[in-house]
This record gives sequence, structure tokens and C-alpha cells, in this order.
Amino acid sequence: MSIKIITVSRQFGSGGRSIAKKVADELGFNYYDKEIIDHVSVETGFCKDYIAERGEHAPGRTIFSYGLDPMGVPNVMNGMSAADYLWSIQRQVILKIAEEDTPCVIVGRCADYILGEHEGVLNVFVHADMEFRKDRIVRLYGESEKNPEKRLNDKDKKRKTNYMYYTNQEWGNATNYDICLDTSRLGVDKCAEIICNIVKNS
Amino acid sequence: MSIKIITVSRQFGSGGRSIAKKVADELGFNYYDKEIIDHVSVETGFCKDYIAERGEHAPGRTIFSYGLDPMGVPNVMNGMSAADYLWSIQRQVILKIAEEDTPCVIVGRCADYILGEHEGVLNVFVHADMEFRKDRIVRLYGESEKNPEKRLNDKDKKRKTNYMYYTNQEWGNATNYDICLDTSRLGVDKCAEIICNIVKNS
Repeated sequence: MSIKIITVSRQFGSGGRSIAKKVADELGFNYYDKEIIDHVSVETGFCKDYIAERGEHAPGRTIFSYGLDPMGVPNVMNGMSAADYLWSIQRQVILKIAEEDTPCVIVGRCADYILGEHEGVLNVFVHADMEFRKDRIVRLYGESEKNPEKRLNDKDKKRKTNYMYYTNQEWGNATNYDICLDTSRLGVDKCAEIICNIVKNS
Repeated sequence: MSIKIITVSRQFGSGGRSIAKKVADELGFNYYDKEIIDHVSVETGFCKDYIAERGEHAPGRTIFSYGLDPMGVPNVMNGMSAADYLWSIQRQVILKIAEEDTPCVIVGRCADYILGEHEGVLNVFVHADMEFRKDRIVRLYGESEKNPEKRLNDKDKKRKTNYMYYTNQEWGNATNYDICLDTSRLGVDKCAEIICNIVKNS
């Protein structure tokens, strides 16, 4: 197995993005996180905030699903709901990145599932305990100190629902990933080192 | 974190036991797998086959639960069902091993949950894809070549149910473990190396 693509799925606040960046820097791989949002924005015309907010969150079959959603974006695109349309474009962008055959790290957006049949992919899931994540989102991400646990639980729930909706798999179930790491136990640097070591020896 | 105890939970046929043995040998840690069965047998008087069969499997609230079970063992011990009694003794044996403060590797038996509050524990979950596991149980464990997939699914289901029943947690959910590894992707030797490296640097 020669690993050319690393997908990093992560719990909010676990440091998964930092690990992904460190690994990309160390290995000299391209790094795709917000960069995917830029691509999707060009393809769809959706504003970046909308994609960032909705790209990893549950589509939700609400009264807004086929009308005008609360962010003012029309909810029907090419006969699909806006959420499904966004998913299909995100999926195309990720497949295109993979086809470019340039080594890269991709953060989130169900890339592990989308590239499931692709050769040379390492799927990583990063998680951490609640205290570690609470501290991290308040101290590093500048989130409010008021009830960060609720914010984390909300985010987890949205990512979990989104993942289940589009992949029919359980987000965070170990069997979906090649390696899962707890940053609150192992540390961000150590996790990055473990991943780099696997890729270098692949 | 100075790791003195490694618990290895594993899917049947994933090579988790081989990894645990390799890690114990490499680090010079004691190794507890069938050895736990010996301890439990002494404590309970249950025969080893019964403990091996029931120690990681769902208790099952069947008509046998409080009578005489199909293996001929009375099902009520100290007011508990035989399965619950077996669990409580297994739990005590594992806690006693941990209190001895001698570095060790413990395979299965919900040791990750039982030692949840214990310092210096690394919880590992090992899994692999169906093809890898089918090949392994037929070639290495001598299981029948007739429908090994059913055998694997049955085993998974039993371990999953047992884990949920006694821990109220989901078996194989990444957040229960410090590290989860796919042997069919990374290889048994690499997984052992990753674990040894974490422990040596802890």
C-alpha cells in the first residue's frame, strides 16, 4: 500500500485539523480543508459561509428543505434539495482532487466514504475527551465560554447525522477508519507522528 | 502518562490477540488472555470451556437464565445469574491484576471499561475487513471453511451485545479507545510497532 491520500475525520475541538496540517507539512502533501469550500463555491455559486455551515451538517428535512432556507439560499437545485446538491458537488470536487494524483490530506466532508474505492487512501478519525475539547474550542477557536459542552454536543450530532444520511454508516465507528486516535490521551504531535510514520513506511 | 497496562479489544479474526502477544513480548509485559480464564476458574469453580465461551458473550435473558444452562452449569450464583456472577468475578480478577502494578497486556473481557478509572492504561481496539478475518480464522484458527462470514458475524454480535450489556457503551465506537487499528490495512506487525512506540514514549 502506497498512501497518497489521507482523509481526516474529526470530532469538533479534537485537534484533528491541526494534526492534518502538521501531517501535510511534514510529508509535503497538499492540504484541503477550507480549500474545498472555495472549489465548491466556484462550482455552485453558494457563498462560502453557507458551504462551511452546511457542508458537514445534517440536511434536515424541514419545512425549509424545498423552499428558501434561513440563510436565504433557494433550496431546490437541479431537482435536488440544496443540501443534496451541495453534497453532490462536494463529492465531485473530492473525487477530482483524488484523480489529480497529487498526494494530499483532506479534512472532513465524508472524504473517507467518498474515496472508499480509491487506492492508496488512509482514513483517520480523530477524537478527544470532553474536557480537552472544551478547553480547546474556548482557548484556541475563540468560542464562547458559556456552555461549550452543548456546542460540542450539537456539532457532534450534526456531523453524525450528516454522515449517516449520506453514507449509511456510523460516524466514529472504528471499522470505518484505518486508524482512530484520541488526542487527549496521545497528544496532537504524537498523533501526527504516528500518521506520518505509517505513510512513510507504506 | 506512563503506560503500564494495555487492554486489547478486538474483532474475532482481526489478529488482535497476535498483536497483544507481540507487544507483551517486545515490552516485557505480562500477558493475560487465557490466563484470566484460569484465575476465574479457580475463583468460581466453573470449567474453563464455560468461561471461555461465556466470558465475552451476551448473557442472554433466555429461559435458561435462572435454571440450568445448556452447558449444565446452574444459572443462579449468590442471587445473580451465572452470567452476571461470571462477569463480577472476571471484573475482580482484572482489577486485582491491575492493582499488582506489574506492567501487562490484557486481551478482551471489557478490561478497557473495567479499568476506565485506572491510571496508565492504554485502550486499544483492533479490527479488520471481512476478507482478512475470513482468511485468518480458516487458515490460522482452523475454523470450518463453510460460511466463516456467518461465524464472524455471530461472534461480533455476541461480543457487541455483551459489551453493551455490561458497560452501556458501544463496542467498537472509536471514542471508547485511545487508539483503533485496522490490521487488514496496516498489518499485524505495524500495529504492534505503533503500540510499542506509544508505550515506550509515554
